[in-house]
Amino acid sequence: MSQSEASTPRTRVVRETHRGVYDRETVYQILDEGFLCHVGFVADGHPFVIPTSYGRKDASLYIHGSAASRMLRQIKDGVPVCVTVTLLDGLVLARSIFNHSMNYRSVMVLGKATLVEDAEEKLQALRLLSEHIIRGRWADARQPNERELKQTSVLKLPIEEFSAKVRLGPAIDDEEDYAFPTWAGVIPLEMTAGAPIDDSRLDPAREVPDYAKHYKRK
Amino acid sequence: MSQSEASTPRTRVVRETHRGVYDRETVYQILDEGFLCHVGFVADGHPFVIPTSYGRKDASLYIHGSAASRMLRQIKDGVPVCVTVTLLDGLVLARSIFNHSMNYRSVMVLGKATLVEDAEEKLQALRLLSEHIIRGRWADARQPNERELKQTSVLKLPIEEFSAKVRLGPAIDDEEDYAFPTWAGVIPLEMTAGAPIDDSRLDPAREVPDYAKHYKRK
Repeated sequence: MSQSEASTPRTRVVRETHRGVYDRETVYQILDEGFLCHVGFVADGHPFVIPTSYGRKDASLYIHGSAASRMLRQIKDGVPVCVTVTLLDGLVLARSIFNHSMNYRSVMVLGKATLVEDAEEKLQALRLLSEHIIRGRWADARQPNERELKQTSVLKLPIEEFSAKVRLGPAIDDEEDYAFPTWAGVIPLEMTAGAPIDDSRLDPAREVPDYAKHYKRK
Repeated sequence: MSQSEASTPRTRVVRETHRGVYDRETVYQILDEGFLCHVGFVADGHPFVIPTSYGRKDASLYIHGSAASRMLRQIKDGVPVCVTVTLLDGLVLARSIFNHSMNYRSVMVLGKATLVEDAEEKLQALRLLSEHIIRGRWADARQPNERELKQTSVLKLPIEEFSAKVRLGPAIDDEEDYAFPTWAGVIPLEMTAGAPIDDSRLDPAREVPDYAKHYKRK
């Protein structure tokens, strides 16, 4: 898909247009590194934004539906949503307050989310969600049974109308501010995993699997 | 404010009601630890969710308006928004896929955001935003001038209608699953700061200030 197909007036970046990114590859990279999204929808005329997990397969986003239950109870044939994923990479300290910024990568996908109703597609979507968050875990855990599958909902959103915003690199100060007597630079930020905590009822002989011991997103 | 004043039908937690938290103190703790929010608003009937920074003063949230310019251009006398802040604390690996979860703390504030137009309040709000993200920085940087203040917009949202959801602690498995032969536990997640990166045009004699060297949110 070319850039012009994916970018519509409503996904076009309005401010700081130099930060707008519309290519699908960059968008997929951001979506694949993150796993927490914020889903926006409208109920009774008011916007709601709810955090939940997601996974991607090709040009489809699958969203764990628990968080969206408020919305799903109302509309079953496709709900307009905005799914936003933000990865925070750093604080940018410039000489002037005005040029302070953050390094980040964010993606916004707009469209109509539909409920995944087919049992096999739903199971595969849940597997995708699980593997997206922690690869290797699905096969190591007790699989969902029919009752559990019924209690879980999954939404599907086509990645058709989207945009990304990316800011990276150093502070950009006004030329006359470079002489201002202060420190300037970037504080890198990253989501890091600590040492896994064994469950209190775990068989002490059981070892921590690699996917838990060395958890990383990049 | 009592819980019943803050919780309305639309902020009441619909699913997993045991995770709903409505007390103002918990909400403030979450808001004060985070600094990135996702702002939801409606434009042309469609929801939009945009990441931006915020600060809190008493029962008011101040939101950096750059991200909301799309919305602000349309309505000046108060825009219905949902501001959601999510802190991710860990991945919860249960024996069953179904009981996998995340530890997180999130806050949703609903209401009408208004543009801060008074010059002094706007300057103080920008100071608040800056100090909320990195305390001590405001005094060390070149202050905003009139032209910059005009280019910046700040929104104010009363923290009146809100809710929080909190999940912490270990995996909770169905009793019959505790014998399932797999590892279970929690992988703690945290946003961490790396070593500050000096700007390439920095005077080499200048030292990294403490607030950049030891950046923490807790």
